Amino acid sequence: MPTYTPPLRDMQFVLHEVFQVTEAFKAMPRHADVDADTINAVLEEAGKFAAEVTFPLNISGDTEGCQLDNQTHEVTTPKGFKEAYQQYVEGGWPALSCEPEYGGQGLPFVVNQCLYEMLNSANQAWTMYPGLSHGAYEALHAHGTDEQKKLYLPKLTSGEWTGTMCLTEPHCGTDLGLLRTKAEPVGDGTYRITGNKIFISAGEHGFTSNIVHLVLARLPDAPKGSKGISLFVVPKFKVGADGSIGERNPIYCTALEHKMGIHGNATCALSLDGAIGTLVGQPNKGLAAMFVMMNAARLGVGNQSLGLTEVAFQNALVYAKDRLQMRSLSGTKAKDKEADPIIVHPDVRKMLMTARAYADGARALQVYCSLLVDQEQHHTDEKVRKDSAELVALLTPIVKAFVTDNGHISTNACMQVFGGHGFIKEWGMEQYVRDNRINMIYEGTNTVQSLDLLGRKVLGNQGATLKKFGKLIGQLVAEEGVNEAMSEFITPVAWLGEQMTKFTTEIGFKGFQNPDEVGAAAVDYLRVAGHLAFGYMFARMAQVALRKIAEGSEDPFYTAKLQTARFYFAKLFPEVHSLMRTARAGSKVLMETDAALA
Amino acid sequence: MPTYTPPLRDMQFVLHEVFQVTEAFKAMPRHADVDADTINAVLEEAGKFAAEVTFPLNISGDTEGCQLDNQTHEVTTPKGFKEAYQQYVEGGWPALSCEPEYGGQGLPFVVNQCLYEMLNSANQAWTMYPGLSHGAYEALHAHGTDEQKKLYLPKLTSGEWTGTMCLTEPHCGTDLGLLRTKAEPVGDGTYRITGNKIFISAGEHGFTSNIVHLVLARLPDAPKGSKGISLFVVPKFKVGADGSIGERNPIYCTALEHKMGIHGNATCALSLDGAIGTLVGQPNKGLAAMFVMMNAARLGVGNQSLGLTEVAFQNALVYAKDRLQMRSLSGTKAKDKEADPIIVHPDVRKMLMTARAYADGARALQVYCSLLVDQEQHHTDEKVRKDSAELVALLTPIVKAFVTDNGHISTNACMQVFGGHGFIKEWGMEQYVRDNRINMIYEGTNTVQSLDLLGRKVLGNQGATLKKFGKLIGQLVAEEGVNEAMSEFITPVAWLGEQMTKFTTEIGFKGFQNPDEVGAAAVDYLRVAGHLAFGYMFARMAQVALRKIAEGSEDPFYTAKLQTARFYFAKLFPEVHSLMRTARAGSKVLMETDAALA
Repeated sequence: MPTYTPPLRDMQFVLHEVFQVTEAFKAMPRHADVDADTINAVLEEAGKFAAEVTFPLNISGDTEGCQLDNQTHEVTTPKGFKEAYQQYVEGGWPALSCEPEYGGQGLPFVVNQCLYEMLNSANQAWTMYPGLSHGAYEALHAHGTDEQKKLYLPKLTSGEWTGTMCLTEPHCGTDLGLLRTKAEPVGDGTYRITGNKIFISAGEHGFTSNIVHLVLARLPDAPKGSKGISLFVVPKFKVGADGSIGERNPIYCTALEHKMGIHGNATCALSLDGAIGTLVGQPNKGLAAMFVMMNAARLGVGNQSLGLTEVAFQNALVYAKDRLQMRSLSGTKAKDKEADPIIVHPDVRKMLMTARAYADGARALQVYCSLLVDQEQHHTDEKVRKDSAELVALLTPIVKAFVTDNGHISTNACMQVFGGHGFIKEWGMEQYVRDNRINMIYEGTNTVQSLDLLGRKVLGNQGATLKKFGKLIGQLVAEEGVNEAMSEFITPVAWLGEQMTKFTTEIGFKGFQNPDEVGAAAVDYLRVAGHLAFGYMFARMAQVALRKIAEGSEDPFYTAKLQTARFYFAKLFPEVHSLMRTARAGSKVLMETDAALA
Repeated sequence: MPTYTPPLRDMQFVLHEVFQVTEAFKAMPRHADVDADTINAVLEEAGKFAAEVTFPLNISGDTEGCQLDNQTHEVTTPKGFKEAYQQYVEGGWPALSCEPEYGGQGLPFVVNQCLYEMLNSANQAWTMYPGLSHGAYEALHAHGTDEQKKLYLPKLTSGEWTGTMCLTEPHCGTDLGLLRTKAEPVGDGTYRITGNKIFISAGEHGFTSNIVHLVLARLPDAPKGSKGISLFVVPKFKVGADGSIGERNPIYCTALEHKMGIHGNATCALSLDGAIGTLVGQPNKGLAAMFVMMNAARLGVGNQSLGLTEVAFQNALVYAKDRLQMRSLSGTKAKDKEADPIIVHPDVRKMLMTARAYADGARALQVYCSLLVDQEQHHTDEKVRKDSAELVALLTPIVKAFVTDNGHISTNACMQVFGGHGFIKEWGMEQYVRDNRINMIYEGTNTVQSLDLLGRKVLGNQGATLKKFGKLIGQLVAEEGVNEAMSEFITPVAWLGEQMTKFTTEIGFKGFQNPDEVGAAAVDYLRVAGHLAFGYMFARMAQVALRKIAEGSEDPFYTAKLQTARFYFAKLFPEVHSLMRTARAGSKVLMETDAALA
């Protein structure tokens, strides 16, 4: 059976030593008083919840899955899920980073993301129930009317109700412009909504007395395509003006999907048969309102893969030290045993270190981005708010796609460490692979992320935001360029930073002549950009570790950080060489394949 | 629901046009009369069986899985599996490449491998039942006594009985030297065998009246380690001298594994409680005898991933043409539809072409290796037999590891083409990913394959066999070097061939000083060698296609082959640049990670 130990020290390192978040909070009136002790105490408690309450339900949740009662349209979730949710609510966790005016604790987003890393390690399928709630909270907070906020936000904050996002329909996922669900004005300010939604995560369950669905639909006079989509809030049970629960709204779960993974989460087909909802934000501006949820959700999906990478790594490491098989190529290591533990084998170490490095890099980037979100929302300086917003917009598709692809690589590598036992369910490793697989798909496939990055975030403003990120690297070079000990970490990042400029210009120029060149290069481009971001993160982490060691620290924790950074630059980062080649190979060999794809 | 069309034309292309197998058969007395029409007719029938009989059982087999009756120790396989096996036997398929003296049809191994490609596409879990039989046939044929052959081979040939290979025990998989199962001489020439085996594929089922287990165990006086292992044949029911079935032998299935994939195959824990067996081959030479099975099995595992890559490709292609979503970046393509089919998007094509290229390359390499096996066994010229044996020994770990890793990449890419629908079981795509995953593990993990390649097959004879493969490339360069049209296909292969010499020498030299350098480089090395082999295969296929087109053929089939080769060299092959870098980055960053892996 797998085990999980919350990586508190690693989180603290990134939060306090690398990014010094409490220093940054001082420029945010809302968070100015949040101190390191508070954060650490919260995360320690959060880690206990994850490790003790939801982690033990992970394998059983996968085995049991969810069941739909076709008569009542109610869904039964795996044993223990509902009780765990009650404990979560009692612990006040849904409120962690919600606004105090709605009953929230008002802690920074970056703390919430650390909570979620641990929840995702413990049980991704369970975590999606509260996770989607938080997305609904944010969309209503940003775009809801005062009345909607008053009705829904306190309940979402306390966790008394949960939320969902209802976008996909059978014929449209990526291309929401095609959606057909209709909303007709009733005349009293409400709308009667009819249509079919699929793939609605946490779409039905018995955790709470109500579920707040955020639904995309078209008004009768709406323009075609994506400019004619509006956002509605459609509760499972109608809500009186006083917040009381009324009659059942006709939004029913009609089927549960049978999926590769996240079995414990109810992925619902929802049928709306004149369900009553109210408009969120402006008519026909629903996509923009929904994107408030989507952007946070994309960071959240990267966080899911960070969680799975971490827990897969922890368990593969235990196994690799325990499993005796063959002798080391360089001579027997465990003379008293009938074979050496497999951790003596270089490729086993390579698989383990791949996961370790991808977890460390992802955690640093996740914390960095989350702090940018806090700055975007709360910094006193408008320029900082704007810069932070731009930077997090640039990095969001990288977090979503690069971290989830790395999660795929890492969970598969950790499973491989187990040999045949990795393929057996009871060891838990294959579940991490299956659960992670959806992260590469939902909230915009990783191809869609790459087009968002290259087409919109980079070429869309002639590389202006990318240059801002480049300046951070330049700053690090300026600070540490003369420090010989840092050279092994800074040289590759500085080199790639320079290459990126040329690389981007080249693709931009080709794309100007033929837009398919952008589509052909985007996925490789995103991975190169991912390594630029991770390279920067590893250089920052190495910088702190080197300083601590120079100051006399003998804590092996800092040595570990240096070893991980060295491994990363030697064994993972160099794939940029091939990626830049394949990106440059262009679109012709792809588009001139009609015979091969006949 | 998925569909499957046997790729007969692609097989014929490789068999007849690229490798001209019937020409090669003329130097093998056993196969001299096998003509193209016979092969094509056999494969057409085989394709029908695969597509019509076992393919429709693939998803249901995955859903139902196998059940063990704890009282009787009998296993129930998914609905239809037994009947399909009966049809397989009635069609004479088990006998296809078995010796005529035991009732076989005596067709070449290469034809049998093409049959198996299709069976694997159709239903890998089902195919493992007859597939393991064939391995048992080969081990007994090579090492059995006359009596064993007389007793078992006719029944394995007809399919009346099936066979298994029983190697793994709970504490040992890769390291068979640790195995503990004991064999005690009874005194009458038989042995009483006691121990526990796990992960026994097709270890129990109700298809046949008997199951022939090949079991590794230790004699009482056996030396420790891998030099003290003997091979025994242990039938489920004892067999009289006349071939009659006697009493139940105490070799019982005590548990079925719950696995990530291949649910339709019974993966058994077998308990031997004094089961009676007879020795196969020499005492203490069991591993060598078992390796007859293992080598064929490793080619067979590559063939499993080839099959899955092909069927995943076919289905992703259908979906990509059918699914309407977004418009082409370079302008609307399907004006009459509400969106363009997703095949217009460059990255969708890249995912499809990745699978197409990896299927085409794997098929060519599989056919080439199988023909080498036929030559090794039946060629009149001893030197050809020896050279063929060496070459296939070199290529076997590449087929096993490179093709199964590519199967992982390809089935995941094809699943990704489906977006969210790829994650849903009913579409069938996620099953291909799950089923393929075991191929990277069993019959020696892909890390073990890489050590076999680099340590034993390449450095073990100072690169002599690798040079033989290099000569084939040299020959192609000599033939086609002046042909300008071939230059785009030959230049990269010739370049990599030259690089390989230097690369190999460098690693060999470092490995001589520190064996961990071999272990650190092996996995990357195997992928580079895989691209050398695939590159050669694509150059050979392009050569034929270019000739046909030069001769005036307007068959788009040849254009397709050129498009696929171009895609391969532009988008897949270039990863060798990064792989050679990471291999050269050495073992130090792996082995000096004690703090990071604390």
